[in-house]
Amino acid sequence: MGLHKLHKQQVVDPSSILSNLHNQSNLTEKLQCLLEFIKQRHCFINRIAVARYDETTDIIKTYTHATEGKNPIPLYQTRLSESKSLTEIMEQRKPRILNNMNPLRSLKSEHSKKVTELGFQSSYTVPMFQGDQFLGFVFFNSSIFNAMKQNVVTDLTVIAHLINVLIVNELSFIKTTKCLTQSVATLANYRDLETGQHLIRVSHFSRIIARNLAKEAGLSDEYVELIFTFAPLHDIGKIAVADAVLCKCGKLTDEEFIMMQSHTTQGREMIEKLQNNLELLSPQSCEILKNIIYSHHEKWDGTGYPDKISGDAIPLEARITSVADVFDALTSKRIYKDPWPVDKAIDYLMEKRGSQFDANCVLKFLENRDEIESIIDKFHETYEPGITI
Amino acid sequence: MGLHKLHKQQVVDPSSILSNLHNQSNLTEKLQCLLEFIKQRHCFINRIAVARYDETTDIIKTYTHATEGKNPIPLYQTRLSESKSLTEIMEQRKPRILNNMNPLRSLKSEHSKKVTELGFQSSYTVPMFQGDQFLGFVFFNSSIFNAMKQNVVTDLTVIAHLINVLIVNELSFIKTTKCLTQSVATLANYRDLETGQHLIRVSHFSRIIARNLAKEAGLSDEYVELIFTFAPLHDIGKIAVADAVLCKCGKLTDEEFIMMQSHTTQGREMIEKLQNNLELLSPQSCEILKNIIYSHHEKWDGTGYPDKISGDAIPLEARITSVADVFDALTSKRIYKDPWPVDKAIDYLMEKRGSQFDANCVLKFLENRDEIESIIDKFHETYEPGITI
Repeated sequence: MGLHKLHKQQVVDPSSILSNLHNQSNLTEKLQCLLEFIKQRHCFINRIAVARYDETTDIIKTYTHATEGKNPIPLYQTRLSESKSLTEIMEQRKPRILNNMNPLRSLKSEHSKKVTELGFQSSYTVPMFQGDQFLGFVFFNSSIFNAMKQNVVTDLTVIAHLINVLIVNELSFIKTTKCLTQSVATLANYRDLETGQHLIRVSHFSRIIARNLAKEAGLSDEYVELIFTFAPLHDIGKIAVADAVLCKCGKLTDEEFIMMQSHTTQGREMIEKLQNNLELLSPQSCEILKNIIYSHHEKWDGTGYPDKISGDAIPLEARITSVADVFDALTSKRIYKDPWPVDKAIDYLMEKRGSQFDANCVLKFLENRDEIESIIDKFHETYEPGITI
Repeated sequence: MGLHKLHKQQVVDPSSILSNLHNQSNLTEKLQCLLEFIKQRHCFINRIAVARYDETTDIIKTYTHATEGKNPIPLYQTRLSESKSLTEIMEQRKPRILNNMNPLRSLKSEHSKKVTELGFQSSYTVPMFQGDQFLGFVFFNSSIFNAMKQNVVTDLTVIAHLINVLIVNELSFIKTTKCLTQSVATLANYRDLETGQHLIRVSHFSRIIARNLAKEAGLSDEYVELIFTFAPLHDIGKIAVADAVLCKCGKLTDEEFIMMQSHTTQGREMIEKLQNNLELLSPQSCEILKNIIYSHHEKWDGTGYPDKISGDAIPLEARITSVADVFDALTSKRIYKDPWPVDKAIDYLMEKRGSQFDANCVLKFLENRDEIESIIDKFHETYEPGITI
């Protein structure tokens, strides 16, 4: 074997193409590198796409894709139950080979339309699982007919399973972050008067607001999930406040009130100290977490604490959590008060919108009264003393 | 295509073989499934093995393997620097193809000997990375010469990268668990008189004991790492003890002492409550963690608390942490005392071996006096008030 041949071999060395998989690149870059790899063998494969499934909404969404050339792929989103063929692939846990996509063109489903619009003639669809949990699909497409012969399918299957493992990896990161933050929140709560159920409700209420704001404010799915994940940590700084102040039943003196207020500053300091340990959180995520902890007692009109900032200067995530936190405090029982009826609490939010609260956050929250009540029902107080997870 | 042919195709359906990858199986089972898959195409591949690299010791260890037939593979362990060829593969980040392993037989290195003893004639070795961090190797072996032709190598390369992603997954689980437990320990410590440095030292001291005990007690590498990970959590229950008791400088009354002692019970309760959140920890790991928290104040002669159990009835992990914790308390400065010199603290451990402490744990600890002193040096107290991570 001459040097020239050796050199040529190195150029197409599959291992050097694949080695990018293990750099810090994101999933999209990883898919691109897998497409490049598979095209060395089967140049007629033009696209790899990953669609994720969200079981709470039954929605299948394109998560990411690698597509050859400049052909832009419109993101699609559909209910799984609306696609009979995808549902079948999921239920039977078996891939589907289509070597002629023409029959799909006559189908009316959103999914079939979107897929055939792109001009592909063959497709191979592999369901992804983690244990029994269905995660979504990997789609391979080719612009030629009969592309998915047995040997091609075998090669694509390995790639599909590699992608499956990459997805499991990403999910385990998110799951872990949730687990970490929930555990810390529960521990912090051990000394608090409030129950774990309060934290769960605040978490859900915050998500309602963020989700309803998302479209007009251009918030990403990821941001909404981070709000949901981090909202229960808003009072974590209370762990550092002395019992004498934290557990006092009567009215606080001015000095004690200052100590109590310090929970926002102390909380942010904690997170800053923890930042080394929390290396699994990205700097952006950490910023959101710190903003919630530090600024959830600021008021829209600048009369809150610790910085007396106002309006848009208060980070959105803190404005969201503040509405959720106060609403839940009002509708919960406390040693010194009965729970307010939902109507009365809503009146309070409406009255204080534009002074205490971001008016838009209040309005977006109240768009879903049914959902609010179902959260109150689902996560009601238990009589167990101490914490409840 | 007749039904018979379709049935036959399903039997060797590569996707059904690979679907086991995403069940709850461990890495060994996953390798077996990958070997089965690759043998469908290249029946002469007889073995896949994964070796992990530990950079603190420069040791390469067989982590797991799948080997065809009953041929038992002796585990080997070697310093990476002792194998010139493996070092080269690692440094150049390029796989190595060997289609004739005979030349290896004349080499004297431990690694070459072990590999050729197995009767393999061809091998393909792929280094694993996560970003710039070298993780180890994937080895493929065949008992025939010239097995590693280009198309075989390409197939094996995808498998190697799939294994690389699986390893990254396992590591991220361990990293996460450490991160979670350290963060919680640091938070719990926020109200405590002790510093974060104390927790780090106890962690290292505990690992010395566990490691030195490992051979005679048959402890796994995993157990030793869990001890290291969980030791800093031993006092987590103090988060639930009132300030008045926890922060009291003078002698505790009997009643206060009982409250202080309750940190073991409270700590275990916390972990039990958290167990749902800590779903990333296996039940076995959770048991070890709870034993450390609940029983680290038991004494060998049965005079400790909370259960007054004695001898072997005290879980080993609690006996280990107890020696490490007391030794560090003695050699550290406290408000009420100067740090003891190392010699005096060692005398104390020796005097109390067999009464307060498991004598064997004390002896194994003292085998490494140099290491103990280097840990004291490395993680000495800082003057920053509050916590130190």
